[in-house]
Amino acid sequence: MFSMRPIGYVRSPYHETRDVPRGLGAKHEAEGILEILPEFAQGLTDIEGFSHLFVLWTFDRSEGFELMGTPPSDNRPHGVFATRSPFRPNPVGLTVVELLRRDGNRLRVRGVDMLEGTPILDIKPYLSSVEPEKLRRGWLAEAEARSQK
Amino acid sequence: MFSMRPIGYVRSPYHETRDVPRGLGAKHEAEGILEILPEFAQGLTDIEGFSHLFVLWTFDRSEGFELMGTPPSDNRPHGVFATRSPFRPNPVGLTVVELLRRDGNRLRVRGVDMLEGTPILDIKPYLSSVEPEKLRRGWLAEAEARSQK
Repeated sequence: MFSMRPIGYVRSPYHETRDVPRGLGAKHEAEGILEILPEFAQGLTDIEGFSHLFVLWTFDRSEGFELMGTPPSDNRPHGVFATRSPFRPNPVGLTVVELLRRDGNRLRVRGVDMLEGTPILDIKPYLSSVEPEKLRRGWLAEAEARSQK
Repeated sequence: MFSMRPIGYVRSPYHETRDVPRGLGAKHEAEGILEILPEFAQGLTDIEGFSHLFVLWTFDRSEGFELMGTPPSDNRPHGVFATRSPFRPNPVGLTVVELLRRDGNRLRVRGVDMLEGTPILDIKPYLSSVEPEKLRRGWLAEAEARSQK
């Protein structure tokens, strides 16, 4: 077992799960703030140079886990590790955000899909992308194709 | 505080930290296996459709954290959240791997940079990339430019 503690909290326009855009074609353009606790703020040094960040956070309002689940973007069940379901054995979320600005220990970002007050576990620089022509997106691509028929 | 437990372990050709390619231009082409514990194997259902996965894992052989550190790819110190340093407040690693094949509860992948036996916390599908022309890579791009002079 490993113990994790928050390094900060998300300030988000979303207060309830139903507020977060979900399902096929959902866009995550919302702006929010990653508010890092003062004792960790030095760790943000030089982060301004990166346009995009990985944010690791906890699904602190979901209980338990399900190995199979039907995501909002499909009407068929899939394994939890093939989805972004909040009901995971380790309830850690991962979001890519665009860094707009840093004000001290507060990072203004675009692309939040977390709820207000979500505990942040880690921030990492986004260094490279998989080339689009090399990417296959499994059941999600199939669900998109079915929805366009 | 949050408690996390392994969902499986990495089988890697790297047994010591010094074996892992590091520094500017390091390539992560090594193949390895994500061996998921039998009780979580159902959660892999439909994962075969995805070409790339996010793997969340723990730096189980690093102790403590440093808010500032000098990465192997530069000779200047940067904040921990602007690097992939293993000495993080929450010692969670994130690696993008290419999924080559699934054999039951074993995922054969390319791109491992973890050590043999590393505990896996979560696997998620890689769904989209930031477009290269929108990506800025801060101190890393600067260090690359300096090294080419």
